[in-house]
Parts: sequence; C-alpha cells; structure tokens
Amino acid sequence: MAGTLNLARLRRRYADEDATPEEVLREVLGRIEACTAQHVWVDLLPHDDLLLRARALGAMGAAQRAELPLFGIPFAVKDNIDVASYPTTAGCPEFAYTASRTATVVARLEAAGAMLIGKTNMDQFATGLVGTRSPYGACDNAVDPAYVSGGSSSGSAVAVACDLVSFSLGTDTAGSGRVPAACNGIVGLKPTRGLLSTAGVVPACRSLDCVAIFAQCVADAGNVLEIALGPDPRDPLSRDVPPLPVRAGLHEGGFYFGVPAVEALRFYGDAESQALFEAALQRLESIGGRRVEIDFAPFLEAGSLLYDGPWVAERLVAVGHFLMQQPEAVLPHTRAIIEDGMAYDAAAVFGAQYRLAALRRKAEEQMARVDVLVTPTIGTHVRREDVEIEPLAANRRLGYYTQFVNLLDQCAIALPAGKRSDGMPFGISLIAPPLGDRDLLTLALRFAGEASEGAVDEPADDDIQLAVVG
Amino acid sequence: MAGTLNLARLRRRYADEDATPEEVLREVLGRIEACTAQHVWVDLLPHDDLLLRARALGAMGAAQRAELPLFGIPFAVKDNIDVASYPTTAGCPEFAYTASRTATVVARLEAAGAMLIGKTNMDQFATGLVGTRSPYGACDNAVDPAYVSGGSSSGSAVAVACDLVSFSLGTDTAGSGRVPAACNGIVGLKPTRGLLSTAGVVPACRSLDCVAIFAQCVADAGNVLEIALGPDPRDPLSRDVPPLPVRAGLHEGGFYFGVPAVEALRFYGDAESQALFEAALQRLESIGGRRVEIDFAPFLEAGSLLYDGPWVAERLVAVGHFLMQQPEAVLPHTRAIIEDGMAYDAAAVFGAQYRLAALRRKAEEQMARVDVLVTPTIGTHVRREDVEIEPLAANRRLGYYTQFVNLLDQCAIALPAGKRSDGMPFGISLIAPPLGDRDLLTLALRFAGEASEGAVDEPADDDIQLAVVG
Repeated sequence: MAGTLNLARLRRRYADEDATPEEVLREVLGRIEACTAQHVWVDLLPHDDLLLRARALGAMGAAQRAELPLFGIPFAVKDNIDVASYPTTAGCPEFAYTASRTATVVARLEAAGAMLIGKTNMDQFATGLVGTRSPYGACDNAVDPAYVSGGSSSGSAVAVACDLVSFSLGTDTAGSGRVPAACNGIVGLKPTRGLLSTAGVVPACRSLDCVAIFAQCVADAGNVLEIALGPDPRDPLSRDVPPLPVRAGLHEGGFYFGVPAVEALRFYGDAESQALFEAALQRLESIGGRRVEIDFAPFLEAGSLLYDGPWVAERLVAVGHFLMQQPEAVLPHTRAIIEDGMAYDAAAVFGAQYRLAALRRKAEEQMARVDVLVTPTIGTHVRREDVEIEPLAANRRLGYYTQFVNLLDQCAIALPAGKRSDGMPFGISLIAPPLGDRDLLTLALRFAGEASEGAVDEPADDDIQLAVVG
Repeated sequence: MAGTLNLARLRRRYADEDATPEEVLREVLGRIEACTAQHVWVDLLPHDDLLLRARALGAMGAAQRAELPLFGIPFAVKDNIDVASYPTTAGCPEFAYTASRTATVVARLEAAGAMLIGKTNMDQFATGLVGTRSPYGACDNAVDPAYVSGGSSSGSAVAVACDLVSFSLGTDTAGSGRVPAACNGIVGLKPTRGLLSTAGVVPACRSLDCVAIFAQCVADAGNVLEIALGPDPRDPLSRDVPPLPVRAGLHEGGFYFGVPAVEALRFYGDAESQALFEAALQRLESIGGRRVEIDFAPFLEAGSLLYDGPWVAERLVAVGHFLMQQPEAVLPHTRAIIEDGMAYDAAAVFGAQYRLAALRRKAEEQMARVDVLVTPTIGTHVRREDVEIEPLAANRRLGYYTQFVNLLDQCAIALPAGKRSDGMPFGISLIAPPLGDRDLLTLALRFAGEASEGAVDEPADDDIQLAVVG
C-alpha cells in the first residue's frame, strides 16, 4: 500500500540529503518505464521540461526548501485539468487545446514545490465510472487487468496505486475520484464542493464537479488538501470558508456512524466484499464508533437524479457545441449519455432542483443522527468483459454508493479496507456533511492505523483481511 | 402614514379595554366598505367566519391574550397564499382551488392571535410589477388612481396604505413586495429568501420566491417578521438559520451605505423623485452614514437574467400544465411572458446559473465595502395609461431597482421617503446581504424616525418633503 513515494518517506530522503529532485525524477521515470499497467498516461511532460523543473528545485537553498511543503514531490493530474503550454484532451484528441493558464489547484501545488510528471488517462469528458471509455485505451487495473480500473480518473488512480507518483489529482462528479481508488486499493478524497478551485478544469457537470486527490495514505491526501484548498476569484463556485474543526468524538472515540439498512446494501453476489464491509464496521466499532442504521432511500433517489434527470444536460454546456460540430470524435456511449441531455427543457431543471432540495432535507435528517455515513465504495469489482456486454449496468453498479454525494453537497473519502482472497482490494467510503472534510480525514487516519500526519506505518488492511479470510 | 390600525395603537386599545376584536372587526369592515380604492380584494372571508374568529379571540382570558403578540390584529393575505377551506385564485378564477391546508406563515400569524380579514388582488400568477394584470380589475393606487398601484402584491399593499388592515402578506420574486409599497407610500419588507416559509404559496419562480410583509411602519414589519420566520419541514427551501445580529454601526451611527454611481441611476425624467432620493441620502448621512459610490453593473446584469434568461421557464413548473390546458384563461401578457420560458432548454439553465454565480461574486465585492446598499425603490411612478401603451416597458421601469435582489440572495426593505408635490410618495430601498434583515430593520427604524419598536411617532417623511419642496 504505502509505497516508497509516500510523502513522509520522500521528505525524509530529501531531509537526509539521500536524494535530489532530479534523482527522484529519474526513479519515477524508471518506474513508469517498468510499469506493466497499460494506458495510464495520456502524456508525460516533455523530458526537458521535467528535467528543468527538477533542477530548478534542486538548486534551491535550504531556507527556500523549508518553505515548500511539497518540495520535490512527484505528482500527476488527470487530463481534464489545465497545465499552461501543454495540451488538455479531456480524453478526446479532437477536443484537445493547449492550455494558456495552469489550473489554480495545480498552480498551488507547484508553488508548494510539487513536481508535475504528466497527464493521466480518463473516461472521455469525465463521463463514466469504468475507466474503459478512452480513445487512449482502457487504463489497466493496478492489481488485475481482468478488472476495470474504475473511472473517470482511471490513470490518476492507477499511477498512485502503482507507486509511479506520490499523489495525483482527478475530478469527481458522480464518484470519479472514489471509484477508481476502490478499484485499485488506494485513498481517494472527494472534498466538499468548492474547497478546491475548479478554474482550469474542463467541466463535466460544473455545478457538481470537484477536484479529487488520490494518495497512498490518508495523511498524504489530507496534506495535499490543506495545501491546495482555498477560495479562488477565478472560480465563482469556489467556497470562501474553510472546512469545519474536527468533532471531538472522531478524535477520541465516542462517535456515531451511519450504515444503510441491510436491504439497501448491494454487493452483487460478492460475499467476500460483504464480509469485508462487516469487518470494516467492526473495526470502526473497535475504535469507538457506534453503528446506527439509517434510511438510505433519499441518498439513492438523489443519486438517480444524476443520470436519470436533467443534470445530464449540464454536460452539454461544456461540450455540447463540440458534440454538434464533431459527433464522430466522441465515443458512442459517451455521446449517447450526453445527447440524452437534449431531451430536457428548462422547466425540468427547476423541477429537479426542487426535488433535490427536498431529498437534501431528508438526507440531512439522517445525517443529523450520526457523525459520518459509512458505505462500501463499490459493491464489487467489475470485469472488463462485463463492461463490454452491459456497459451502462456496469457503470450503475460502480456508482451506487458514490453518485449522490456531490448532489447532496457532501464530502467523502474512499479508503482501502482489506482484500478479497483473489487479491482484489475492498474499500469503504466515509461520507460527511459539507465542510466535514477534517472529520473524515481524522477518522480515516484512525481507521487506517496511521498514527499521525506523516506516519509511514503500513495501513491496517492486513488485519482486516486476516479477520475475514484468515 | 401610520394609521389608526398600526400595531402599537391597536395593542394599546386592547390593553386599555378600549376595544374588543369584534369591535375592531366591525371597524375594519366599515373602513373596507367606505374605501374608495377599487379592486383591492379578491374576496373577504365570509362574514360568519370573521365574526366567529373575532368572538373566539374576544372570549380569551387575560393570560391567554398576553401570550398572543398579534392578539386581534387584522391582516390580509395575497390571493396566492393558501388559507384552508377558502379558494386560492393566484389572480386567475379558472385556476382557483380550495386550499386544504393553511400556508405555514399564515398559520404562524394566526397562532399569534392575528385576525385574517381577506384575500387580496394581485397580478395574475404574481407575474408583473404593475398591479393592472388581474381579471378582478386593476387595483387602484391608494393615493391617485391615475397611477398604477404596483404589483404583483397590489391589493395587499393598498389594503395597508388605506388603513384597512394593520399589515398584510404579499410575495416577492422580482420586487412584488417592494414596488407596490413604493407606489402607495408604505413599508414593504422582502426578507432573506427562506426565512419565511413558502409552503402553501403558489410558486412564481419557486427558487426565488419570498413572502413579503407590508406594514404602516417599520416596527410593525419587523414585529411580524420575527413572529412569522423560522424553518419549516414543509418547505425544503426554507432556511434553518435566523437573521444575523445587528452590526454595531447601524445602531450607533458610523455605518457605510452604498449608492449606485449617478450614471446608473434612473428617474425617467422625474426631477422631484431625484431630489427626494438625494434628500434621503442626506438624511442617512445625518444619522451617521457615510456614502460610498458602488458599481451597480453586476446588480443590473443579475436583474436582467430574471426576464431575459431561463428563469422565466421556472414559472412553467407551477403553471405550465394549466397554461397548456386552458390558455384562454390566462391574460395575454402573462401568457406571453410565461410562454417565453418554453424557448429555453436545460443546458441554458445551468449556463445562466453559472453566470449568476459569477455576478453574485462581483456584487458581493461591492457589498463588502458597505453595510447596506441604498436605491430608490422605483425611479418614478407609472401612469395607468402608460401601461396600456407600453406594458413591458412600464414593468421594466418598475423593476429596475428591485429585480436583482432575490437572484443575488439579498434582503431589502422599501421605505417611504417623502412625497412629490403632487402628493405621490417617494421611497427608498435598503438592501443587505443574506440574513442582514435585522440590519435593515434597525437602520430603517432610525431613518423613519421611529424611536423604538412599537413607537407610534409619525415617520419623518414630512421633514424630507419640506427639505425638498418646502
């Protein structure tokens, strides 16, 4: 899990003068070269540019380095996020443009010393949760290529899972920053909408889009969040309030976690994942949590609005014009989903927004009973061949526990929680009300057995695996 | 201005046992009978029901009365607000239905002892600011029937202006709770959206609709607001937070008020209104305010979205079906406005919502420089004959200073501020960020010369008139 590129290890190497940014860059490029997972990247940055950046970092004096919390940390970004002077494809070569300005969130990370390596593969226009809908090839799952990598931020998740970079950015509208984390056994943080600026990100559903963070451990995800967050005049949907302080119970134990009633849980026949979920709940109980069964119906109905409601039309705002001009440039499934948006009129949007407001109230009533909600991130893994047979059904399965979160203005973190006997990872999601991000990170650190920020302990998933399959 | 039915006077009469609710009811009915303004009411409540309610109140003991802050206070509600077992017409007899449940906000007032007298005339479906678009006849202006009464809450404003009731409820989406206050020389309070439940109100643009309060003085409007506000499980758009505490500067002086740059002000050639506006600004300075010129452009652009953008389609959600079924039942102008909504597709709504978010940011930057924004409520009065010649232009003039407020999530209070030499009232609006309602009321009390809540002093408009025309 926590590979050699995690922040604590890399920072220690830099502090010990055990590595220079250029050496780390060469290691990273060697790892990328050696990695057997296919179709992770749309493109690496040009070699000369990478070298220039690494050397500029290496030339810094100790005082300057000390002010850069991400000094020399290699990272990747999904290819719907702008980096000035490089192409942004959003998974569609014909759509590609050369960005004139770097996305705010990337600029903040670079200003903190992080070292961008490349742009990662994705489901075209961030539409899909499977990771197979890319003209650059279906991104391989990091554990077993018979399974999908999850999407739409497939390459960003796999790059971290394969320890090619320390962390990466994806985006998340329906679960694109959490589903691929679960598919590949890493941490995926979907912060409260608006905490991370989306200026310079190709919109999917702009009112719901979030930048997401993939990392090898919870501490790293939290670290990157704190550096990247903040209001942005370039993004009128950014929030100008920070996350809330952590609730005492999540630090100390004595917290309540909600779990969907058993009849609302879906594992699609995967008994091992079901057992791993129960083991994760018991682990939460063992660290001071009390389980509360909640009514999952309003969450599910809210989630269904995303693809069975007028929000599909929101995708037309960003790519509708392109779709009209070059329909053949868009993958058939992607096109079909986005074109569905044309069937909705303006009144339908207002009507659906009222319905969503009512569902938010119902969901809030349930959330008021607990500190966090806990679900599986995905009920089971999906085979690539299943996607070919039933592409939309596969997508729906993957989004069952994720697609309501952004609509309900919640935040969520996807965490590894053991492995099936075939080695495929299981994962849970912790979900909180808006601005509860620090609650999530605090509980996730404890769940993962990471003693404190910067801890390099291996996460506790082996314990869980033993409990279930041992 | 502050007629015999204002709250302080009526409360004193009840306290002195100088009147019973039944006697007040008879007085009110006598006033209504004698009132020369035409088309104020859609219907009074049946006489027997009125009498029953008044007698029930009269039968209460002193202890019970003491718990009812609106004991025996007569009020009226606009006929798009439900009162159980009576028809709600929304200004369209063919649309009328018998309400099965009383609107939450009316129920709260009745629970506080208020005595509902009747349902008032309005622009059909609350669409319009003129007060002439009603099949029940154009509601007369309270001062001079050559001028429009303003709308859409025309009857509610005129009922208060003619001292037929102590206060009344209207609704406000584009200014319907402020424009008729200015047209008739009374106070109109448009609270922050969601403070007053809209459950049981026929929607215009439900995401923007507010219940508004008309009163004879500021203290009464504030009094009614505090009694009627609060979260409501029946209304998912209601807010569950109270208004903010009053900023010190508004109590004590030392506050800043924003005024649109002079080139953005519109008086349509009405030099007296222009002079009265300047006099009102000088009065604000005399009570400790400092004038700050602000950029009015983002406010105006936001306002233009309401009728020249997809929000017209929001009106279809509530009445679109009826419009399809019985187009001939809807007034031609009203129908034309609402039918415009059919031209917008779903993507247009999302695009306009992004634009609004950007404009909100720009408006917030301006509002951050001041405590309140001050504008005329209407630039000048509109003659009924002008409406017949150019109905849409007349409507736009009336909404110039009001229609951005709800879109920008602001609150506002319309206040009398002197009279023209022909006796027609002039008025200003104080406008504040969301939940700044108590700021507005505090400053308005001082501006109006009402010493404290419950004060019965005559407002200071005569001073202003003297300063300008004297």
